[in-house]
Amino acid sequence: MALVYDEPVLPFVYTATIVFVMAASVYGLRGSAELSSFHRREAYLSVTLSWLVVSLVGSLPYLFSGAFPSFVNAFFESVSGFTTTGSSILTDIESLPKSVLFWRSMTHWIGGLGIIVLVIIIMPSLNIGGYNLFTLESSFQEKIHPKIKSVGRRLLYIYLSLTLAEIIFLLIGDMNLYESVCHAFGTVATGGFSPKNTSIGGYSPYIQYVVTVFMVLSGVNFVIHYYAVKRQFHKIRQNEELKFYLFVILFSGFLITGILYFQTDRSFELAFRESFFQVASIITCTGFATADYLLWPAVGWYIIFFLMFFGGSTGSTAGGIKMARHLVALKNVRHTFRMMNAPNGVIPLRINHRPISYQENNGILTFILWYLMLFLAGGLLMVFLGSDVATAFSSVATAMGGIGPGLGTIGPASNFAHLSEASKIALSALMVLGRLEIYTVVMLITPWFWKN
Amino acid sequence: MALVYDEPVLPFVYTATIVFVMAASVYGLRGSAELSSFHRREAYLSVTLSWLVVSLVGSLPYLFSGAFPSFVNAFFESVSGFTTTGSSILTDIESLPKSVLFWRSMTHWIGGLGIIVLVIIIMPSLNIGGYNLFTLESSFQEKIHPKIKSVGRRLLYIYLSLTLAEIIFLLIGDMNLYESVCHAFGTVATGGFSPKNTSIGGYSPYIQYVVTVFMVLSGVNFVIHYYAVKRQFHKIRQNEELKFYLFVILFSGFLITGILYFQTDRSFELAFRESFFQVASIITCTGFATADYLLWPAVGWYIIFFLMFFGGSTGSTAGGIKMARHLVALKNVRHTFRMMNAPNGVIPLRINHRPISYQENNGILTFILWYLMLFLAGGLLMVFLGSDVATAFSSVATAMGGIGPGLGTIGPASNFAHLSEASKIALSALMVLGRLEIYTVVMLITPWFWKN
Ligand SMILES: [K+]
Ligand SMILES: [K+]
Repeated sequence: MALVYDEPVLPFVYTATIVFVMAASVYGLRGSAELSSFHRREAYLSVTLSWLVVSLVGSLPYLFSGAFPSFVNAFFESVSGFTTTGSSILTDIESLPKSVLFWRSMTHWIGGLGIIVLVIIIMPSLNIGGYNLFTLESSFQEKIHPKIKSVGRRLLYIYLSLTLAEIIFLLIGDMNLYESVCHAFGTVATGGFSPKNTSIGGYSPYIQYVVTVFMVLSGVNFVIHYYAVKRQFHKIRQNEELKFYLFVILFSGFLITGILYFQTDRSFELAFRESFFQVASIITCTGFATADYLLWPAVGWYIIFFLMFFGGSTGSTAGGIKMARHLVALKNVRHTFRMMNAPNGVIPLRINHRPISYQENNGILTFILWYLMLFLAGGLLMVFLGSDVATAFSSVATAMGGIGPGLGTIGPASNFAHLSEASKIALSALMVLGRLEIYTVVMLITPWFWKN
Repeated sequence: MALVYDEPVLPFVYTATIVFVMAASVYGLRGSAELSSFHRREAYLSVTLSWLVVSLVGSLPYLFSGAFPSFVNAFFESVSGFTTTGSSILTDIESLPKSVLFWRSMTHWIGGLGIIVLVIIIMPSLNIGGYNLFTLESSFQEKIHPKIKSVGRRLLYIYLSLTLAEIIFLLIGDMNLYESVCHAFGTVATGGFSPKNTSIGGYSPYIQYVVTVFMVLSGVNFVIHYYAVKRQFHKIRQNEELKFYLFVILFSGFLITGILYFQTDRSFELAFRESFFQVASIITCTGFATADYLLWPAVGWYIIFFLMFFGGSTGSTAGGIKMARHLVALKNVRHTFRMMNAPNGVIPLRINHRPISYQENNGILTFILWYLMLFLAGGLLMVFLGSDVATAFSSVATAMGGIGPGLGTIGPASNFAHLSEASKIALSALMVLGRLEIYTVVMLITPWFWKN
């Protein structure tokens, strides 16, 4: 790549190292589906450490390229890449060497692949955040150990196929190969880095629709893609999370289309395209932009802010709280009244036609509490570090959800360069916390973890 | 009262009616501690209806006095009174007849008394929102039926004593009798209506400290006062909610004291007094003011905004989510990790040394979800009705928590007069929803409630 564009090669010697470290840590975990207490601990440590080490090493190309003014900036960009967040400190993206920008997009793609493996193979066996409920069937889970290699291989193929398909569709729309690959990396990993200053805004409507569709596809549980490949369509039809995910996209998409159409002088097609692109981008936590939603009528960007807490489906590269957890929370809300009217009958909650145990239910509700508490604490910290309220709280929401842009001074048309170094480090930590589903990281600082 | 001040008597003929209706509905419920399915339903209906009817009738004095320009304004003020919220549409309070202002403060006092009976006697037997956990001992609960009259009478005495004690302390500080009674009504019911335009701001530091102390006392679970009267101090020492409540007040009080002292040119005493008055006022959901926190450094009023979600203790007249529920949520957050490290051992959660069943735990977590969802939905509705974001979301937070003032255009130095009629009706509904702990009201519109 660097050779083709006649740019310095040195930074990319490190790429090999990083991919190797990543692969090694993932491989090390992959073998142990049934984990003893000791191995569980090792697994927790490895997951968090691997993201940190990879981010540290991954920031080296930025530093060596000379394009990033300080270590904190390079580290922020690297964490933002590997966690597939896509928040950037670059003020003029296009002034950077193409090879550095390519590496930047590639961090997304590597991070996204790591996430798919993490949430579909590693987390269910660690029993974190109810993941065993959302991924493969329980009957399948139990015998996943021998099948683990074939599942892993299939997931990799699906990830590759989505990337390739998008590249082809983008090429058809006259985007050049380099930009097509970068944007495909950013979409499939729901990352959001673009080699262009205006993100997807400068491209044709066709390109914008293509990216919208691929963002939506990438926010779907990869287990659904897996079923699609295996032609088990009845399992897809049974999936409540998928229905809820599509419902939220359609509902908020049309709501904002209406707001843009009636309250501004946009044509219907433009309102529709702008709305659905931004809605898909925020819900799937991608963070690409074709419009600055801060220039929309106020109601529009309030909705965008709330969508930051939705997140895509479990088992995808999307971040946030995720649809299945919201769905379980909604079911609880409904369930309360049913139980109050039938205090003696025990009616179990179900998701995707699978009963949820009390323990799992509690784990999911508590996850949402953790998420909101961290959001409030992080927002307050950012205010103390000197940000205005909109920037503070939206930067935390966007970092935890792995989205990219926020509100205030970090909107889709701005960047994170002007924040203090302390703020950048805090946001980097929140990106990792959100990406690794909070529990994995917080676990490491509980007294129970280190005891005996 | 009206006779003493030589004002029209007519509006107050209605007072008797209202107090009668209130008393009757409370009395009707009081007898039935063990409720059959049929009686449970009747109880739900009666509770919500009694608050509505009382508020409707209670708005008549405002209308007849001619001081309120429209029915919606009078109704808003009445709901705000009986729910002990204390948000007002009056722009110049002191221009009103003293008798109307006295009635206004009295609605708080009546509403507060109703709440104490509701949350300590009625709700535990309906098993709403985990109330059976927070009030009297379970052993006590089971044999509460025969004791119900004596408990009710004792609670009434405590309520009366707190009111009387505050009146005496205020009189000592040279406040006149009329204002002392009004402010004592507003404090003990954690209501917040004041007959003065500047609330407590115009009084001496002594008066401000007295009101602070009585706000804190009124935000304590009345069961604690009950134990204090019965000299069962070991039960008070065991009460985790009380400790948590005092901790939150002290922590946020000193935090804001520090902010005011170091970031403004206030003396330490002024910073301390202003901080603790406002913190106590918001946490206990009273809503009196001695300072406009919107003029504080930004960090200060962000903290105030978050405190709006805390609420006082369960079993008090305070609103909001309430300390015990936050405490249970925090315990869950801690518990998750303990469970992840001991996946096979079942360690039950406890509050006030009482084990929490899975069902109760779920009910509490779901209550918090309901609260936050309603807050978001209500805030969005207010934005659609034309408010700016700070006004919209803080008006909903303040209405649901029964606090009084908010941020934006409804700060402590402003009022709710400028809002649209639709907004006032929406906020009135949210006040009743928050006051009756959501479930009681929402229950009425579930299909399960009306079935069979
Ligand atoms: K992203
Ligand atoms: K109040």
